[in-house]
Amino acid sequence: MLYSERDIYFIKKTFLLAKKAKGFTTPNPLVGALIVKNDKIISKGYHKRSGLPHAEIEAIRKTTLRDMKGSTLYINLEPCYHFGKTSPCVDEIIKNKFKRVVVSTVDPNPKVEGKAIKKLRNSGVEVSLGVLEKEARQLNEHFFKNMEKNSPFVAAKTAQSLDGKIASRTGLSKWITSKKTRDFAKSLRDEYDCILVGINTVIKDNPHLDGLKKIPVKIIIDPKFRLPLNSNLANKYPEKLIIFTSYRDKNMDNLLPFNSGSWPVLEISSRNNNSSLLVKAGLAKWNNLIIRGAKVFFLREEERGLPINKILRVLYDLGLMSVFIEGGAETIGRFFDDQLVDKVYTFIAPKIIGGRSAIASVAGIGNNEVQNVRYLNNVRVKKIGQDIFISGYTGI
Amino acid sequence: MLYSERDIYFIKKTFLLAKKAKGFTTPNPLVGALIVKNDKIISKGYHKRSGLPHAEIEAIRKTTLRDMKGSTLYINLEPCYHFGKTSPCVDEIIKNKFKRVVVSTVDPNPKVEGKAIKKLRNSGVEVSLGVLEKEARQLNEHFFKNMEKNSPFVAAKTAQSLDGKIASRTGLSKWITSKKTRDFAKSLRDEYDCILVGINTVIKDNPHLDGLKKIPVKIIIDPKFRLPLNSNLANKYPEKLIIFTSYRDKNMDNLLPFNSGSWPVLEISSRNNNSSLLVKAGLAKWNNLIIRGAKVFFLREEERGLPINKILRVLYDLGLMSVFIEGGAETIGRFFDDQLVDKVYTFIAPKIIGGRSAIASVAGIGNNEVQNVRYLNNVRVKKIGQDIFISGYTGI
Repeated sequence: MLYSERDIYFIKKTFLLAKKAKGFTTPNPLVGALIVKNDKIISKGYHKRSGLPHAEIEAIRKTTLRDMKGSTLYINLEPCYHFGKTSPCVDEIIKNKFKRVVVSTVDPNPKVEGKAIKKLRNSGVEVSLGVLEKEARQLNEHFFKNMEKNSPFVAAKTAQSLDGKIASRTGLSKWITSKKTRDFAKSLRDEYDCILVGINTVIKDNPHLDGLKKIPVKIIIDPKFRLPLNSNLANKYPEKLIIFTSYRDKNMDNLLPFNSGSWPVLEISSRNNNSSLLVKAGLAKWNNLIIRGAKVFFLREEERGLPINKILRVLYDLGLMSVFIEGGAETIGRFFDDQLVDKVYTFIAPKIIGGRSAIASVAGIGNNEVQNVRYLNNVRVKKIGQDIFISGYTGI
Repeated sequence: MLYSERDIYFIKKTFLLAKKAKGFTTPNPLVGALIVKNDKIISKGYHKRSGLPHAEIEAIRKTTLRDMKGSTLYINLEPCYHFGKTSPCVDEIIKNKFKRVVVSTVDPNPKVEGKAIKKLRNSGVEVSLGVLEKEARQLNEHFFKNMEKNSPFVAAKTAQSLDGKIASRTGLSKWITSKKTRDFAKSLRDEYDCILVGINTVIKDNPHLDGLKKIPVKIIIDPKFRLPLNSNLANKYPEKLIIFTSYRDKNMDNLLPFNSGSWPVLEISSRNNNSSLLVKAGLAKWNNLIIRGAKVFFLREEERGLPINKILRVLYDLGLMSVFIEGGAETIGRFFDDQLVDKVYTFIAPKIIGGRSAIASVAGIGNNEVQNVRYLNNVRVKKIGQDIFISGYTGI
């Protein structure tokens, strides 16, 4: 189907509006709305964060009923149909006498999924659906993954030399890429709900893992509970810290219902546990972390380590809709082995580190063969200063 | 210094002419020449291969003395001053009454190095030197390296996944990149005098290592002389094969002057050795190869294997002015360890192979640290179909 240049023009503008809140609307999608009359934008709005008004309501509030009458509403996602934290937008649109609504994509949320479009049409509003649909899905790639797979969107980031090394043979990794590149990589954290690393990365690099504009939740996969209490992650914003472990003190066997129920997850936090019990068990470190506000989850370790799919399940249940994995090589390799990575960000410093015992960016078990390993989709390549940035999608 | 747009325009044309013979002029440089009168090109020429006329002579022969009188000669490299396979071009230029000569760079050959420029000026010819000098040096990067360092120009090529793997954990390496990329990589061989690999690559992949337009010389580093007689390299064009080994049959100790002289190199070939001695020594395989036309060089093995710098020395002495290394990871790593690589060609298929035991593109000992590993210079990035091609210079 072909769309008018005018529609494409205004829909692109809704994308730009929507993007302003990138990383801040979770679990909601990014939405921008424009009210256009006689080819003039008379109002605009975007969804700023969960709990605040939806984009179309923002736009509607900023204008008058008289102006809206007979106008066109441009919006990158189907208006909502259901009562959430706000009342359904579809009813507001009908009430305000819009003549036409231009929408990029249907809302994949099963509670909506075309129902709002149908209701608009039944109420006599003209609806054009599908303008820049592919781009609109990509804009909300996290949200679409969430709704369609009931799972967080997962991205893996590496910063490596041209020969694929993330650390030299002596273990040094600071820094392979330039400051400019690292700042850019930091800004990507702002787009994600949480940053995930393996415990070895924490012990070796003692990272902060913060974004440029926000403090994301940090996830540590730490089977043996080796997290140092004096680490940056345990000290700065510990309330933003989630630890997955399988470690249990022998004294805890009677305290933790490890085998109770089919879902072997137990959260220990000051909110839902009796911390005095933990102290009694001598688990001072654990208790200390929990008092600081961190969360600890227990998962039964499997042959290859903690079960990644269950970790993602827990994160999703916690409302963490997107995960940014920052290493190390084994942790990233685990996610690739289990085909749980949606997007890849690779920063390449064009230099050769070399070394048969240097660390390559993706470990794990790996693929047996090479010919049928799938190419990433939508690969983009750009230079950042002296470095090269490559991104793409696995298409899982 | 600023040059006129006209001069830049015509000098760029000499580059294009010169490039037509890329890979075929060794040990001579790539040279293109234009004769321009009243802003019109009245003749042109380029150096097609060693032994054939120089570029300016080509151009001069195609026109008349009358036309040349008062014209300008454009040429990317200083005309020759010395008698080689041809008489000095500088004298031809003076004889033919050129008014002006525009040259990009001085010829780095110690036999020339500005002498021709001086002679032209002393003879009343106006000379403009330095137009697009940097580009002209890059055009003849092999030749400049040869003249300035008395050593072959060395390039290392890898074809790898986004995570730097050249083979999966099971050792498979065919094919990581696409057909289109591999054909392009093949065309790069045409630009080099010889292709170098380690014996493991020969045994594992049984490659041909030919270019698209020419059959280059192939070099195998094979310390234990494991080259299979039925390999492609030993069968197709064995006269183009050079093997470096340290293997010596115990019967050979009395035959080979291994310790005679300071330069521990011995060439065995049907040309300069008594092959009956070898047969007598029971070295049927060696003799077989030599009868086919291959050359075998002996070098004393050092701690890390055969001495790479001596191999390059031998190649240079043989007139092989540029070397294209195609692997494997250990061979390429050796060259990087010894800082003997001038140029890097990396083909990246944006796919993740993964695997802690998969093979990364550059092995060897490697750098101890990462921060001070130098970035490549003049890095170029381009897409070839689905793959990404990155090249750069080490600046050694």
